[in-house]
Amino acid sequence: MNARPDEATLKLARELLHARYRAGDIAGVSAWNDTLATLLSHRSVRAYQSTPLPDGTLELIVAAAQSAATSSNLQTWSVVAVEDADRKAKLSAVAANQAHIRECPVFLVWLADLARVDHLAKSRGISLAALPFVETFLIAVIDAALAAQNAVVAAESLGLSTVYIGALRNDPETVAAELQLPPRVMPVFGLCIGYADPARPADIKPRLGQGAVLHREHYSIPAQQEGIDEFDTALLAFQKEQKMRAVGWIELVINRLATIPAMMGRERLREVLRTFSFDLD
Amino acid sequence: MNARPDEATLKLARELLHARYRAGDIAGVSAWNDTLATLLSHRSVRAYQSTPLPDGTLELIVAAAQSAATSSNLQTWSVVAVEDADRKAKLSAVAANQAHIRECPVFLVWLADLARVDHLAKSRGISLAALPFVETFLIAVIDAALAAQNAVVAAESLGLSTVYIGALRNDPETVAAELQLPPRVMPVFGLCIGYADPARPADIKPRLGQGAVLHREHYSIPAQQEGIDEFDTALLAFQKEQKMRAVGWIELVINRLATIPAMMGRERLREVLRTFSFDLD
Repeated sequence: MNARPDEATLKLARELLHARYRAGDIAGVSAWNDTLATLLSHRSVRAYQSTPLPDGTLELIVAAAQSAATSSNLQTWSVVAVEDADRKAKLSAVAANQAHIRECPVFLVWLADLARVDHLAKSRGISLAALPFVETFLIAVIDAALAAQNAVVAAESLGLSTVYIGALRNDPETVAAELQLPPRVMPVFGLCIGYADPARPADIKPRLGQGAVLHREHYSIPAQQEGIDEFDTALLAFQKEQKMRAVGWIELVINRLATIPAMMGRERLREVLRTFSFDLD
Repeated sequence: MNARPDEATLKLARELLHARYRAGDIAGVSAWNDTLATLLSHRSVRAYQSTPLPDGTLELIVAAAQSAATSSNLQTWSVVAVEDADRKAKLSAVAANQAHIRECPVFLVWLADLARVDHLAKSRGISLAALPFVETFLIAVIDAALAAQNAVVAAESLGLSTVYIGALRNDPETVAAELQLPPRVMPVFGLCIGYADPARPADIKPRLGQGAVLHREHYSIPAQQEGIDEFDTALLAFQKEQKMRAVGWIELVINRLATIPAMMGRERLREVLRTFSFDLD
């Protein structure tokens, strides 16, 4: 799989890299394979057909998720697969009524789960002193994120599409009630999985030039300017193609982060986590 | 790539699933491809050759990382590639002297990075009110984790191996000094990348039975017992094969989470984050 790629393969590789950066070659592409093509082709899809997943597909996706690394093999995550229409509608209502949550055949809710290890230890009469710390919460969040990303890659390799739903954090209490989450279990994000509606296609979104995110030996803010400028140019071109209002990245950043109302309730997360028995000591 | 797999392919799929669960088929495997094989074959490798990565490979891996979803396209992560031997040695010292950090040709430090957006907004005279919140810290940590996991999959698809290093969080201040991290940038974890030393092979580690992590419609603790029991059996078999002391999962959980000294300094993380200008309001 590491043989020198042929011309047709190189063409695909260059097209995918161009869609991502819209700049010159990031570097000579010396190797390529189907997995890289899957990864580089990613786009978040917000329009689904109702077609269900084939039998066994969800289990295969979860096996891929479980194959991701997990801190000290603690496996402090779980996932709830929601297929019930009423339940999807209620979760959609939490997430600013995003229609794709109702449309997709399977909606996965990824959980930071310290309840399993807590339950296991308590059944032996032991209490886990490390639970109420930021560090242990982070372990669970990172475990969930690594697993979910493997699930995304697995799903996309099978011709399915996905989109993460961070907006479940707008109101984690309602999500917890709907999914019967016990203390020490927190919904980190949702994930729609299904077959994209070909009538409403999504395009590959550009990203920051590599110079802005990839640092050598040490971090530098000034070194990022070129990558940021490249991205601003790429984003304007993308927005024009998509018939969106053409604005630079700075405006997107400000719209999202400059005010508390734009947080859509997520400014309460620390307090919500406490009610979920996640003390961030 | 979704054609009904042939017998040889099905045999590989079953072998990989068996190595992961050591139980009967999780479900009939109806689809398979090289990407699933890469994902299911994952093992964390702690023994590397010194062979460098081919030219352009790191850039390709970072392009895969950047292709992962990012919350609202904020791209609140960065990565520092460390190849300098002295610097790798210093970072190894932070992480309980893990030798593979010194051995691997490229050590990546993944960063939750709110400094870039902060800098950008300040350059326009705007301050980002949403920065000092748990939610915004989580966005950055999740962005970094999704990107890193894509990097892992890309690297492994190219025949490279990896291992995450959470132990950088034992002493984030030293990591920050070494990598010249400004305020609002936090090292989330490290990642060794390189060619595995064939003389010191790693095996696929078993995971919890799917019944313990995959829930349907709602979460349940009692429903997890069978998956936990399956995993205990699988883990004991794995430990015997590896000539490790055979202990159940509960003992691993307790060793890692029952006491504060086992946190290796990470119980200080909340306070450390404050010195990094991550206020978790």
